[in-house]
Amino acid sequence: QYNFTDSNNMVIKCKAAVAWEPRKPLSIEDVEVAPPKVHEVRIKIVATGVCHTDLEYLYGAGKAMKFRPFPLVLGHEAAGIVESVGPEVTKFSPGDKVIPLFLPQCGECERCRSPKTNQCRKNWANTQVGVLADGTSRISCKGQQVYQFLGVSSFSQYTVVPDTSLAKIRSDAPLDKVCLLGCGVSTGYGAAINTGKVEKDSSCAVFGLGAVGLAAIMGCKVAGATRIIGVDINTAKFEKAKEFGASECVNPNQCSRPIQEVLVDMTGGGVDYALECVGSPGVMSAALESTIDAWGTCVIAGWTETEAMSVVVEKILMGRTLKGTYFGGWKSVEGVPKLVDDYMNKKLKLDEFITNILPLDQINVAFADMTSGNSIRTVISLSTEETSG
Amino acid sequence: QYNFTDSNNMVIKCKAAVAWEPRKPLSIEDVEVAPPKVHEVRIKIVATGVCHTDLEYLYGAGKAMKFRPFPLVLGHEAAGIVESVGPEVTKFSPGDKVIPLFLPQCGECERCRSPKTNQCRKNWANTQVGVLADGTSRISCKGQQVYQFLGVSSFSQYTVVPDTSLAKIRSDAPLDKVCLLGCGVSTGYGAAINTGKVEKDSSCAVFGLGAVGLAAIMGCKVAGATRIIGVDINTAKFEKAKEFGASECVNPNQCSRPIQEVLVDMTGGGVDYALECVGSPGVMSAALESTIDAWGTCVIAGWTETEAMSVVVEKILMGRTLKGTYFGGWKSVEGVPKLVDDYMNKKLKLDEFITNILPLDQINVAFADMTSGNSIRTVISLSTEETSG
Repeated sequence: QYNFTDSNNMVIKCKAAVAWEPRKPLSIEDVEVAPPKVHEVRIKIVATGVCHTDLEYLYGAGKAMKFRPFPLVLGHEAAGIVESVGPEVTKFSPGDKVIPLFLPQCGECERCRSPKTNQCRKNWANTQVGVLADGTSRISCKGQQVYQFLGVSSFSQYTVVPDTSLAKIRSDAPLDKVCLLGCGVSTGYGAAINTGKVEKDSSCAVFGLGAVGLAAIMGCKVAGATRIIGVDINTAKFEKAKEFGASECVNPNQCSRPIQEVLVDMTGGGVDYALECVGSPGVMSAALESTIDAWGTCVIAGWTETEAMSVVVEKILMGRTLKGTYFGGWKSVEGVPKLVDDYMNKKLKLDEFITNILPLDQINVAFADMTSGNSIRTVISLSTEETSG
Repeated sequence: QYNFTDSNNMVIKCKAAVAWEPRKPLSIEDVEVAPPKVHEVRIKIVATGVCHTDLEYLYGAGKAMKFRPFPLVLGHEAAGIVESVGPEVTKFSPGDKVIPLFLPQCGECERCRSPKTNQCRKNWANTQVGVLADGTSRISCKGQQVYQFLGVSSFSQYTVVPDTSLAKIRSDAPLDKVCLLGCGVSTGYGAAINTGKVEKDSSCAVFGLGAVGLAAIMGCKVAGATRIIGVDINTAKFEKAKEFGASECVNPNQCSRPIQEVLVDMTGGGVDYALECVGSPGVMSAALESTIDAWGTCVIAGWTETEAMSVVVEKILMGRTLKGTYFGGWKSVEGVPKLVDDYMNKKLKLDEFITNILPLDQINVAFADMTSGNSIRTVISLSTEETSG
């Protein structure tokens, strides 16, 4: 059993994967993690997923992604255990199982009180540039401040997050599985359920069959869609897509016409819902154009920041809707524990997303497997404690 | 009193403004209007509005607009009186006051039965290329078939339309006013009410202060928006916009920064709803970016067909929605008579849109006034009968 009190108010020395500069592999370093300040919680990260957005912020920094300050500890899809709490923290205690959140839910602002959005902006400007509420990071390496990606930094054995960016989850949840609810699975699943509001007996196309896309398929299936068409240029992903609920799959590279035309023909006018889970502007345009006029809805779930997509105006005028999802529309603090329940009650798959489990020092292998399309989700195990193994 | 029976089953000779070729002024000609065929109705056009779309299809043919066959009789925003009915027409009789519809409502198809759309496709492919159900037009000139714009052609003293593209309205309605419900006013008003679903106490920006924009302002006002910001590069339009309900107006040409940034600052984050009533892709992008993240909705009401707008993906991902409106979302056959009622009950302004009334032979003057920004709506009077004067 871990002794939670020992480290209270003390700096913890541990391992982390540090991104010293853009477009360079991560480097495993000894880092120092400062104690939590007011309304902050220090957590021991047990497991973290490796998300495509981590890769993009490293290799696409200043290109498709805004430049964020370096050095940086990436990672934002994780689960762990509360190690210690700062002053005025009332909702968490050492030993609690938790999922850190890149999207806060303060519960008090206009947005948190509105049913229309999950986009709380508590500490927003700071976390977007990698620091906490007081303008500094809690992680340092070789005497230098290391920025916390989206205020999280789960590629570290310990990190500190604001208490409004943390979900407490049930004590029997396997952390090496539910970590995936910190980003990708929640995003894709919610894109279908919450943002698209996919209806019973509808037809759907899901572009991109990575973790977000598979989760979107799962969402369409749960919503009762009767036709779910998976779209990917990697045919090797089709079998898994069908396990998740795809009724059929199409490879655009094997079509003689643009994929949107193929989908319009396959469905006699277009799908009711298209979900873009790639993050490519060209694919986004194709997804929109694959929906039926009159009521087709295209939800963008793939992430890209600075790029623009092209929208033929007539497609919008004829009744299509373009929406985006951020964390699947879930109000984070409330939503994540319910998603954990759904997993524990076998309503939601998680194990099936995990294609590999690696230790922290092989994190660059996880990036390579993602780029090559060999993995759906690699989970990095940062601790042998409290996992399902 | 017009004798309706005389012309039954006979060709009617009358005046029409014919567009012989793109980018040339309209020419007033003697045309022949054939009797209505099965499920068709021949109507005497009493008054027609001149809409920017008429101008665009003439001068933008093959550019921003798809090319439609010429020669052509334009005009699609009109009111008139049933002159005769073809076989199997059950819902109309000679003497009925009517508004012809470029958007049908057959009442029987999946779309008509769905509450989600107004986009019935009855006779669609044919009317889009200017012919009726049997593949021919009912108008001819000098022995040559003249195409019917959107299946309507109201720049003619008589025309023939399908019985599913015609709304019967109350007998006391002034046709030289309610003609505006055939397109522009219904589109702008419905863009706010039906498509945007503008909420009470919200903030709105309306881009473009022509008829569609003023109608959108009226819709925002009726919906209870507390702040309605009119946007136009013609400051002369601001006074009228305020009469319709704008709380303030901004001229982008008099701002030192992009209009979307100005609006975001004015509203502390962006408007809840933006309505684009210009038909310009650049304005559409600005409109989208002027909405608040989390729940901002941008409705495109301005018409352009082949052009594309640029959407910065992050703007969508952060919770904005992009939608388009077609005929303001009104189910046409049912909706138009209700809008006429709203006008008669003084819930809806129409008189205030009309800046000029001209005879048919001055239709090119109406186009010139529209281009110069001197008019909001010019109504062309095709008959002295049954008007409000």
